Amino acid sequence: MTTTSWNRHHILSLADFTPSEYNTVLQTAASFREVLSRRTKKVPTLQGQVVANLFFEPSTRTRSSFELAAKRLSADTLNFAPSSSSLTKGETILDTAKTYLAMGTDLMVIRHRDAGVPQAIATEMERLGSRVGVLNAGDGQHEHPSQGLLDLFTLCTLLDPGQPRWELLQGKKIAIVGDILHSRVARSNLWSLTASGAEVHLAAPPTLLPQLFASYGSAQGRQLHLHWSLEPALEAADFVMTLRLQKERMTQHLLPSLREYHQQFGITRDRLQLCHPDVKVLHPGPVNRGVEISSDLMDDPRISLISQQVTSGVAVRMALLYLMGSGKV
Amino acid sequence: MTTTSWNRHHILSLADFTPSEYNTVLQTAASFREVLSRRTKKVPTLQGQVVANLFFEPSTRTRSSFELAAKRLSADTLNFAPSSSSLTKGETILDTAKTYLAMGTDLMVIRHRDAGVPQAIATEMERLGSRVGVLNAGDGQHEHPSQGLLDLFTLCTLLDPGQPRWELLQGKKIAIVGDILHSRVARSNLWSLTASGAEVHLAAPPTLLPQLFASYGSAQGRQLHLHWSLEPALEAADFVMTLRLQKERMTQHLLPSLREYHQQFGITRDRLQLCHPDVKVLHPGPVNRGVEISSDLMDDPRISLISQQVTSGVAVRMALLYLMGSGKV
Amino acid sequence: MTTTSWNRHHILSLADFTPSEYNTVLQTAASFREVLSRRTKKVPTLQGQVVANLFFEPSTRTRSSFELAAKRLSADTLNFAPSSSSLTKGETILDTAKTYLAMGTDLMVIRHRDAGVPQAIATEMERLGSRVGVLNAGDGQHEHPSQGLLDLFTLCTLLDPGQPRWELLQGKKIAIVGDILHSRVARSNLWSLTASGAEVHLAAPPTLLPQLFASYGSAQGRQLHLHWSLEPALEAADFVMTLRLQKERMTQHLLPSLREYHQQFGITRDRLQLCHPDVKVLHPGPVNRGVEISSDLMDDPRISLISQQVTSGVAVRMALLYLMGSGKV
Repeated sequence: MTTTSWNRHHILSLADFTPSEYNTVLQTAASFREVLSRRTKKVPTLQGQVVANLFFEPSTRTRSSFELAAKRLSADTLNFAPSSSSLTKGETILDTAKTYLAMGTDLMVIRHRDAGVPQAIATEMERLGSRVGVLNAGDGQHEHPSQGLLDLFTLCTLLDPGQPRWELLQGKKIAIVGDILHSRVARSNLWSLTASGAEVHLAAPPTLLPQLFASYGSAQGRQLHLHWSLEPALEAADFVMTLRLQKERMTQHLLPSLREYHQQFGITRDRLQLCHPDVKVLHPGPVNRGVEISSDLMDDPRISLISQQVTSGVAVRMALLYLMGSGKV
Repeated sequence: MTTTSWNRHHILSLADFTPSEYNTVLQTAASFREVLSRRTKKVPTLQGQVVANLFFEPSTRTRSSFELAAKRLSADTLNFAPSSSSLTKGETILDTAKTYLAMGTDLMVIRHRDAGVPQAIATEMERLGSRVGVLNAGDGQHEHPSQGLLDLFTLCTLLDPGQPRWELLQGKKIAIVGDILHSRVARSNLWSLTASGAEVHLAAPPTLLPQLFASYGSAQGRQLHLHWSLEPALEAADFVMTLRLQKERMTQHLLPSLREYHQQFGITRDRLQLCHPDVKVLHPGPVNRGVEISSDLMDDPRISLISQQVTSGVAVRMALLYLMGSGKV
Repeated sequence: MTTTSWNRHHILSLADFTPSEYNTVLQTAASFREVLSRRTKKVPTLQGQVVANLFFEPSTRTRSSFELAAKRLSADTLNFAPSSSSLTKGETILDTAKTYLAMGTDLMVIRHRDAGVPQAIATEMERLGSRVGVLNAGDGQHEHPSQGLLDLFTLCTLLDPGQPRWELLQGKKIAIVGDILHSRVARSNLWSLTASGAEVHLAAPPTLLPQLFASYGSAQGRQLHLHWSLEPALEAADFVMTLRLQKERMTQHLLPSLREYHQQFGITRDRLQLCHPDVKVLHPGPVNRGVEISSDLMDDPRISLISQQVTSGVAVRMALLYLMGSGKV
C-alpha cells in the first residue's frame, strides 16, 4: 500500500469530492482488491482499532460488507442493533453515538432513515474534540457515498483493471433509470459520475423524477439530462444503472402497478438493443427480479455487473476505512 | 493434523457418505477435540477465510456452534439475520447467497425451513464456477448432516476415545424414539447409523412414524426396524436417541397431549430397565424436560450423553469446515 | 500487568467484596485504561478463550461494553440472542447455560430480568465441576456489580488518576438520587460506596425509596442516610449520582408525572448550587434528558462524568474478565 495524501476526516457526501480524492479511493481500492484475491485476505492495517457499525435502519447486506471490510483490515467490530437498544429506552441518537465514542470507537459507520444524521454525529464528534471518523452508510434519501464510490470503481475497473481512474469515464453515456426521487444511491452517483465527465441521462416516470434534479448538473462542465421516458436515455448508452423500486411506492400512489412500471421502465434484453453493443447493466441490490430488470438479464455475466458491484463494495469500503483510519495517526 | 484425502466439496446429506468419509470425519474431529482441551483453543487453519452463517431459519444453538468452530479455525465469520435482511425486501434466496459469494465468502453454512435450499445454493455456486463449499445446517425435515456426524462421533468416542471409527457400532442396538416423521436429525442419523452396521430401531406413535421409513434400511446389510410402541425398541438397546417433540404437533392433531405422549413414549429411568445395563441416552436439544425424557435422567451424567453431544458438535464442525476449506487449496 | 492475588471465581454481587478486592480491581483497571489509550488497544491475555454474553434481557450498551472488553483481551466472543433462541422452544435457562458450557465457554456474562439467575447458573457450573466463571451483568433489581465497580473507578480515578483506590472516597459525601427501589445500579453502588467510607445520602420520593434501604448502612462504620426530598442530600455533596427513571413507573402509579418528578428530583444547574463547588454528576445511562437531569448539565464536561463512566466501563470489564480468566490457570 503506497501512502497517499488524504485529508478528509469524515465521508458524508460526494458533493464536494475532488478529482484527486476520487482517484485516491480508486487506487487504494485497487490495491485491496488484490489482497482479496489472495487465499489469506487480511492485512493488519487497523489492528486494535474499533469500527462501530451503527445501523439505526437495519441492513444485512451493507452491514455485512462494512463488517467484512473492517475485519479484513484486522479491526474489531461492534454492531449496534436498534431493536434491542437504548433507543427504545428514550436515549437520543447523539447520546448513543457518544456512548460508542466513550467506549473507544475509532470509526463509526452510520445508517439512518433520516437524512443528515451522520453529518449531525460527525459535527458532535468534532465539537467534543474527538478524532473519530464518521462514514455515512446511507442517510434517508440523501446520500450513500460508499455505494457511489463502489459503482465508480466497478465502472473504472472494467475500463482499466490495472489503473482505475475517473478520467476513464469522460464522454461515456450513462443512463440512470428508476426511482430517482427516493434514491440516495442515485444522488451519490450523480455527484461522482457528472464529476467524472460522464454524460448522465436520468429516466423515470414524472412522479419519480422531479425537474429539480437538473441542478446536479448545473456546475460547469457537468452533463446531465432528464427524460420522462426510457428510450432517449438508453440510446447508445455505455452503461445502464437501474435502481431499486420500493414496493411502498405503489401504496403512495406514485405508480400505477409494478407490471406497468416494468412495461415502461424495466430493463430487458430487447430494450438494450438501443444501447452501445457492449452495454453493461448495474443495480445496487437487492433486486426485484422482473420489475427493474428482467430476470435473465440479471443473470447474464456478459451484461450484468451486479456481482462485481458487491465485490467492489468490500474493496472500496476497505479503502475508505483505511484512508479514514490512517488519517488519525 | 495428518493430511487426509477428502473430495467432497459440499456437505448436504449423509445419504451417500462412504465408510472412508465417515472415518475421516471421526479422526479429524478427534484431533480437534484435543485442540479444544487446551487452554488456547485455536488453530490458524482458516486464517483470512470467511465463513458465512446464512441462517434463514433462526437458531442460536447451532449457529453459535458453527460460529465457534469457525473462530477456532481462525476464520472470519459473517452472520446473516433474516429478520433485518434483504429477504423482506423481495430478494430471492439464491440472490442473497450470490451476494455473499461476491463479497468473498469461502464457506457457507445454510439453514432453511425448506428442504433442498442448501442443495439449490450449492448447485448455483457450481454453475457460477465458484469454489465456495456449502454445508447444510438443517433444511426443513430433510437432513442435518453435522448433527448426524456429531452423534456418530459421540457414540464412537464413547466406545474408543482414542480411535473413534464407525466399525465400533457394528451390532450395537440403537433405539430412535419420538417425532421421526418431522425430524431432519432422525433422517441424517438413519443414514449414518445403518451404514455403520448398527441395528436401528425406530419407535413412535403411528402418526409420527410412517411405514415409508423402512426404505432407509433397504440397502444390503442395513438393519432397520419400525415399532409403534416403545418396549420392543428399548429391549437390550445399547443407546437410546430421543428426538425433540415440537409443541406445534399438538395443534396439528398428530398427538393427543404432551402428557399422554410422555406416558407412552417418554424415556424414564423405569423404562431404561429394559435396555442394556450400560445404556446411554442422547438428545439433539433443546430438550422439553418431562416430555421426551424425564428431568432426572437428563441430568444423570452416567446415562445422559447430551452435553457430550454439544461438545462433539464444535469438534465435528471444526472438522467439516477444515475438510471443506482444505479441499479448496 | 503486575500479578495480583485474586480468589473470587464468580462476580455476582458486591455485598461481600473485600477492601483488597476493590483495590485489585481498581489497579488492574488502571493498567487497562492505559492500554486503551494506545493506538493498538489489544493485549493477548485471553487469546483462544471464549467469553459468552448470555443477555436474556436485551441490552446493546452493556453487551457492547463487555464484547469490546473481551475482544481487547483477544478472547473470542459469542452473543446469545434471546429472541431467536431455544428459550422460545421451551428450553430452561440452566440448560441454555449448560449448552454454552459444553461448547467450551470459559467465561459467561449473564443478564436476566430476574434476580438470582447468574447465581443459579454459577451454582450449577460448580455442581457440574466446571471451572467456568460467571459474571452478573445485571439481574432484575438485585445487582449490577460491574456498574458499581466502574462508578467506583470513575470516582477514584478522578481523585487520583495514577493510583485509584477506595480509600480516596473516605469522608466524601455522595448523593444517590432517583428510582432507588427498582435500581440494581443503586444496590451495587450502595455496597461499594459505603464500604469505601463515603457518606452516602439517598434521595427519592417515598414510593421509590422504602425505609428498608437503611439496612445497607447497618454494618459498623458505614454511613447511610435516607431522604424523601432532594435538598438535604445535595447539601455540600461532592458527587451526585442520578439514576434512570423508567417510564413504566408512571403506569404503575408510583409517580404522578415525569414533569412533576423533574420539578422535585431532577438535577439542574440551580440545584447544584447546594453542593460542593467542584461537584460532579454521574448517570449510568441511558439518560432521559430533562427528566433525571437537565440537558445542558449532562453536556457540561466540567460537571458530567457520564462519558468517563462509559470509558471506565470497558477498562473495568477488561479487569474483571482478566482477573476471572487468570484465576483459571
